[in-house]
Amino acid sequence: MALVRLYDDRNAAPEAREVFDDIRKTRSNDYVNNIWRALAVHPPMLKRFWNYMKEVMVKESRLDPLTKECIYLAVSMTNNCEYCIHSHIAAARNKGMDDEILAELVEIVALANAGNRLTMGLQVEVDERFKPKFD
Amino acid sequence: MALVRLYDDRNAAPEAREVFDDIRKTRSNDYVNNIWRALAVHPPMLKRFWNYMKEVMVKESRLDPLTKECIYLAVSMTNNCEYCIHSHIAAARNKGMDDEILAELVEIVALANAGNRLTMGLQVEVDERFKPKFD
Amino acid sequence: MALVRLYDDRNAAPEAREVFDDIRKTRSNDYVNNIWRALAVHPPMLKRFWNYMKEVMVKESRLDPLTKECIYLAVSMTNNCEYCIHSHIAAARNKGMDDEILAELVEIVALANAGNRLTMGLQVEVDERFKPKFD
Amino acid sequence: MALVRLYDDRNAAPEAREVFDDIRKTRSNDYVNNIWRALAVHPPMLKRFWNYMKEVMVKESRLDPLTKECIYLAVSMTNNCEYCIHSHIAAARNKGMDDEILAELVEIVALANAGNRLTMGLQVEVDERFKPKFD
Amino acid sequence: MALVRLYDDRNAAPEAREVFDDIRKTRSNDYVNNIWRALAVHPPMLKRFWNYMKEVMVKESRLDPLTKECIYLAVSMTNNCEYCIHSHIAAARNKGMDDEILAELVEIVALANAGNRLTMGLQVEVDERFKPKFD
Amino acid sequence: MALVRLYDDRNAAPEAREVFDDIRKTRSNDYVNNIWRALAVHPPMLKRFWNYMKEVMVKESRLDPLTKECIYLAVSMTNNCEYCIHSHIAAARNKGMDDEILAELVEIVALANAGNRLTMGLQVEVDERFKPKFD
Repeated sequence: MALVRLYDDRNAAPEAREVFDDIRKTRSNDYVNNIWRALAVHPPMLKRFWNYMKEVMVKESRLDPLTKECIYLAVSMTNNCEYCIHSHIAAARNKGMDDEILAELVEIVALANAGNRLTMGLQVEVDERFKPKFD
Repeated sequence: MALVRLYDDRNAAPEAREVFDDIRKTRSNDYVNNIWRALAVHPPMLKRFWNYMKEVMVKESRLDPLTKECIYLAVSMTNNCEYCIHSHIAAARNKGMDDEILAELVEIVALANAGNRLTMGLQVEVDERFKPKFD
Repeated sequence: MALVRLYDDRNAAPEAREVFDDIRKTRSNDYVNNIWRALAVHPPMLKRFWNYMKEVMVKESRLDPLTKECIYLAVSMTNNCEYCIHSHIAAARNKGMDDEILAELVEIVALANAGNRLTMGLQVEVDERFKPKFD
Repeated sequence: MALVRLYDDRNAAPEAREVFDDIRKTRSNDYVNNIWRALAVHPPMLKRFWNYMKEVMVKESRLDPLTKECIYLAVSMTNNCEYCIHSHIAAARNKGMDDEILAELVEIVALANAGNRLTMGLQVEVDERFKPKFD
Repeated sequence: MALVRLYDDRNAAPEAREVFDDIRKTRSNDYVNNIWRALAVHPPMLKRFWNYMKEVMVKESRLDPLTKECIYLAVSMTNNCEYCIHSHIAAARNKGMDDEILAELVEIVALANAGNRLTMGLQVEVDERFKPKFD
Repeated sequence: MALVRLYDDRNAAPEAREVFDDIRKTRSNDYVNNIWRALAVHPPMLKRFWNYMKEVMVKESRLDPLTKECIYLAVSMTNNCEYCIHSHIAAARNKGMDDEILAELVEIVALANAGNRLTMGLQVEVDERFKPKFD
């Protein structure tokens, strides 16, 4: 159970309902999922995070939509965010992720978490050739 | 300075030198970077991690090489592994990453770390529709 | 379910029961919550952590009680400690936290987690003027 | 050394220079610190994060400015973001933090990180009374 | 519920069933626990991780089996991996861990997480004498 | 450079100097390392953490001194605490750690960090048999 009420169209503030509507329109989907309903406890927070998410994840850019979801998931798996893993795997499946790609993703995440600790555990110094040079 | 000696061809054990040679061959590059030289302190550890890395990151698979590097980097940025960020940005640049893609990557990583905390901080429960069903 | 028994007055060791009584007295509240009952598995551990908590969080000091809870919660939200988030939000509500302050807190926690990754992801060096000087 | 160039007024894009000017104006201070100069590698990212920071940390709200910095620092200390710790301690000192308050802050951060692990390590379940009830 | 099917002998691929059999043989125990059944979604991943685990945790080495489990648990408690804490406490109890040793373990983990933040929070520099010297 | 002054016998408060002396006596070593000198900025904090460390790490108990250092190091490597890794590897070497044991330790830490993410990434549920039963 969330630590704040999950708002819906009946009890959310007008500023929050506007965001709900933008979520529906952007996704062509009537369903507003729980995180947005929880953030509606403080409408400016809801609005700010939705806009941030929309600009970074929805707007067309250099990285394709599935790659973006893989990056988002890599972070969420590293941090063990149960909600985020569930919701972004659902989103990624809509963008073409199947079990094999999911397996590849989680294995790279595991490998990187291991590699990070080998390197940090032995405090290996950065090779000169990996340091960027700007004139 | 690493907490163990950085081995090279002159002082590494034969089993470690074999791995060094496989790294050179796999990458068509004579340079063996510091992490592998440090892991040579215990050759079985070096061999295991190199083989793991080679199978997951080098072998052809469903995800393309640049996407794999982005996933590896997303983890390394979340964990603040200075060495890994440097070495894998170098690798990613060789696979086509430019400043704009790097910026997109780091911004998704930041967004996801924020989104993870909004969700965990309020302990939002997973929507029923995000829970997988297996017959 | 905790991985150790949750002790109570009937089965806890005398040294643990003394701590239970000090918790009750310090808080003017008869209820001893689960974390203390679990720590009673090893009374010296229970005593040490309770005394640490009491000195740092209960004793009057420069920071006011609600600010201390906000700091404790910021850590717990970053680490996703479900128990700690629940228990310290309850404590914070007793010290004046309402939904709006909770929203402000979680949003700063999210923002900081994002800002940390932008900075670590790009490995930005500290400005000279931020480095402290001691004569 | 950052992994991207640190931009300044001479080589930043116009959209980035506008943000630099807003930073200067908001802070009544001519100095633009390194994180903003690095984010200028991708002006939309710079603009988004600056606006987010300004709305959450600068705009007047229920929490006072020093408390906000303490929360931001608690996260940065937990994540070991060297840059963020340095820059936000500098900001906090400008808002009244002295050595004693800094010590209190870091000790609560340490205590909470310990308490989080006692609770997670033993997987203690949340007390019924800490679960929120919404009608 | 896992995000992939938990495979068993009836529906797992032959390569996965071979790993299941090796797990049973290595442990002299017919039961294959959930993590291996989930990894069977992608048999090469299952095989790689099982072999890694077997070589590092099962093969005789300098550290005794209970110490190895304590190290694995220290990481899992720091990361709050509910599954890993449960399964490795079960394994550790089979190797001689009792409640008192578990309490000592979790208290060192808590202490270290606190000590890490005191040190990182104040950005204390490494003493010269702690830096290793190699000729 | 630490963010607070590193105190020594000449400028530390009497309560801090007493702790310095207890550190020297406990370790039969005249050297007081930097973390304690930094904590002296707030003597009660110094005293609390030193006593905590002394009771948990120095006092004889069920786990032997080297195992305790391995557990402390596993946490510090996971969190990338540069100072803690350096100082506790120095302490562990005094208690018998050689390069091979260090390699075993860091490899288990890497493996566990990988295993944690495989399990969290796929959100594998705990097997019934791993859940403890108390009458």
